Amino acid sequence: MKLGTIKPGTIYGVGLGPGSQDLMSVRADRLIRQASHIAYFRKKGRTGHARSIVEGMVALDAIELPMEYPVTTEIPFDDPRYNELLAAFYERSVARLTEIADAGGDVVVLCEGDPFFYGSFMHLYTRLQGRVPVSVVPGITGMSAAWTATGQPVTWGDDIMTVLMGTLPEETLVEHMAKTDALVVMKIGRNLDKIRRALTRAGREEEAWLIEYAAMPRERILPFSDAGDSAPYFSILVVHGNGRRP
Amino acid sequence: MKLGTIKPGTIYGVGLGPGSQDLMSVRADRLIRQASHIAYFRKKGRTGHARSIVEGMVALDAIELPMEYPVTTEIPFDDPRYNELLAAFYERSVARLTEIADAGGDVVVLCEGDPFFYGSFMHLYTRLQGRVPVSVVPGITGMSAAWTATGQPVTWGDDIMTVLMGTLPEETLVEHMAKTDALVVMKIGRNLDKIRRALTRAGREEEAWLIEYAAMPRERILPFSDAGDSAPYFSILVVHGNGRRP
Ligand SMILES: C[S@@+](CC[C@H](N)C(=O)[O-])C[C@H]1O[C@@H](n2cnc3c(N)ncnc32)[C@H](O)[C@@H]1O
Ligand SMILES: C[S@@+](CC[C@H](N)C(=O)[O-])C[C@H]1O[C@@H](n2cnc3c(N)ncnc32)[C@H](O)[C@@H]1O
Repeated sequence: MKLGTIKPGTIYGVGLGPGSQDLMSVRADRLIRQASHIAYFRKKGRTGHARSIVEGMVALDAIELPMEYPVTTEIPFDDPRYNELLAAFYERSVARLTEIADAGGDVVVLCEGDPFFYGSFMHLYTRLQGRVPVSVVPGITGMSAAWTATGQPVTWGDDIMTVLMGTLPEETLVEHMAKTDALVVMKIGRNLDKIRRALTRAGREEEAWLIEYAAMPRERILPFSDAGDSAPYFSILVVHGNGRRP
Repeated sequence: MKLGTIKPGTIYGVGLGPGSQDLMSVRADRLIRQASHIAYFRKKGRTGHARSIVEGMVALDAIELPMEYPVTTEIPFDDPRYNELLAAFYERSVARLTEIADAGGDVVVLCEGDPFFYGSFMHLYTRLQGRVPVSVVPGITGMSAAWTATGQPVTWGDDIMTVLMGTLPEETLVEHMAKTDALVVMKIGRNLDKIRRALTRAGREEEAWLIEYAAMPRERILPFSDAGDSAPYFSILVVHGNGRRP
């Protein structure tokens, strides 16, 4: 077959949902089980969380393409070199995926939760667009699993819901926490203390729940006021709304 | 077997996702196919949207329990009788479900999207709690399908995301639209004109997309400025965030 006649493969950005295999969509389940190539981000020397979610589902002869984040501990977050290093890493990853697609192979890229909702897949996606066929499969978000775990609906009637990242400045957090009905805060980790101060200043501390590892074996739900000094990477803060209810 | 020894059944509130059968979770798929009793809301004389999503998946001998909304067109929304009528309807529905569970049967209640995210299941849920075992299965939300359909990530870096209902007063809409990065508006329908005025006042009209029937056969994506005077029940407005990106 001449090179020019090869039909290019598709890069699938597949949402895995919050972590439990049976909370994956039927479409995701099929794509992963049938995949000839599986790509995923991970830290150097680790299994990678996305990869561990699909353990036992990947075909034995599937080709695995771990994309290992460059080690950046030496470089401060706000140093322009940090962004350059990451950008180069994404470019290299995209080159590898594109090569496979150009040769006619499909690649399933594993994405935690929903790929387009604060996901790292978008850094590949924006670079792949226009170069090869890309298809995105939405997933159940971590926050859906988190509020489900609390056993209380998160929004009612015409409640307003706000999603904030713990990495935001304290003032911004306070302002938005005070004005919303339902609240979700992600990326908590070492921002926990700042988040607690902001919650208190906004008068919302009593209503807040912390959900660690939602829909994973280590799932844990506690009143936010019982949280310690930090929280694991997989944790989400939820304040339930209180809307109209017949 | 004595009545006292019957193990009560479980009421499952099952998130169906946005509408496509293969965007249902594997857990939802299994529960629906194995269900002995299937319950769902619908308008009098209609199939019901939730029921139509699972067409072909329900066992032939499953017992179906349509819960038909009382006709309220005669009563204005803000009349206390409106709420009383709905509350009585939910009580009747709960009584039926509880009876089945008490006799040892499981019931799958079909819920569009994610049950705890602005879902009508919560009106049953709060009344079932403490009376019979209840289990909630999260689902892919309509908004996830909507932003996936636009082909652009909705949130990046530390973007703030706000979810608003089109039923809110115009002033409230303007205030929140102006202060958020990413924006989702649901329950558009006949609120479209008010939403358009609010978007314009908040200076966000140019960035907004309207997604009708996300992940359904009639899916349609258009710039919000091209929308007409009203939108179907299944439509969502999305403004993408624009956060930090290496
Ligand atoms: C980079 S964002 C990815 C979000 C993901 N795309 C989603 O749709 O949920 C990472 C953050 O998501 C949250 N998260 C995602 N899944 C979670 C889970 N199962 N349990 C707790 N937190 C989760 C945590 O707050 C974490 O810091
Ligand atoms: C009562 S709320 C239910 C939301 C649902 N529980 C969810 O998780 O998406 C109904 C609103 O959801 C939105 N919606 C839900 N699914 C949708 C879809 N597939 N396409 C467009 N809009 C949808 C519409 O704005 C509609 O007015």
